[in-house]
Amino acid sequence: MPYEFAERGSTGEVEDGQALAPRFDADGLVTCVATDAASGELLMVAHMNAEALARTIESGEAWYFSRSRRRLWRKGESSGHVQRVAEMRVDCDQDAVWIKVRQEGPGACHTGRRSCFYRAVPLGKAPDKSLVLEFRDAEKAFDPRAVYGNKS
Amino acid sequence: MPYEFAERGSTGEVEDGQALAPRFDADGLVTCVATDAASGELLMVAHMNAEALARTIESGEAWYFSRSRRRLWRKGESSGHVQRVAEMRVDCDQDAVWIKVRQEGPGACHTGRRSCFYRAVPLGKAPDKSLVLEFRDAEKAFDPRAVYGNKS
Repeated sequence: MPYEFAERGSTGEVEDGQALAPRFDADGLVTCVATDAASGELLMVAHMNAEALARTIESGEAWYFSRSRRRLWRKGESSGHVQRVAEMRVDCDQDAVWIKVRQEGPGACHTGRRSCFYRAVPLGKAPDKSLVLEFRDAEKAFDPRAVYGNKS
Repeated sequence: MPYEFAERGSTGEVEDGQALAPRFDADGLVTCVATDAASGELLMVAHMNAEALARTIESGEAWYFSRSRRRLWRKGESSGHVQRVAEMRVDCDQDAVWIKVRQEGPGACHTGRRSCFYRAVPLGKAPDKSLVLEFRDAEKAFDPRAVYGNKS
């Protein structure tokens, strides 16, 4: 799959220009935020290398790079929970992209929730070992053992 | 400022437990997504080191770690465009946090826009040098030269 992103130019070119010139980090990754195209809900945060970004742009389906498994990963390849990209945006310094997706299936999170963000952090005091996360929107949308088998 | 996050336990403890045990990357950072608490709009993506995360939890105002300037940074310290945190969540593997904020002032982006995500990436073909970003929601909400002076 051929792809060729623009060279990084001046700050003004990167921030106010119309060329896609991603700033990949030392590991070759940009951050990707996926929200639900209909509800606006934040579903997940993941990473893309150049190939994942190019494949996402070309196919209109979300591809990521798994930092833990060190490999390219098409969202839904195991679960069937594909993400169809309704819109992609890039941020000012082009080290993050935002995709608004139509999430196929009941959820985006491998734990079985719709979103990966199902716990709230209490605010207002310095965190210590007494801090207790609060479950919020944490009901399971699917059974990960049934979807992923023993891999989960 | 004392703070003490929990030790990283098993995958089950990290994903389904109630202890805050962030997974900081090799640079000591987690990703932070900031959305507007009222509209749900994605405002920015940035990073937090342990101290920025602790200060945000304690103060209820967003602190970040600037990768380019290599320093702790209170959002709004130059611009006055402080972010007051209405809710913080952490994701399944605890390497990303999501803050829903009340954005003080006209915008979150140092370029003068309300959001950092003011350009869309066209979809449907392999990216090459002919790809042209489309400005969307890109009107300036403030004049960065007036807000930041010559630093911008």
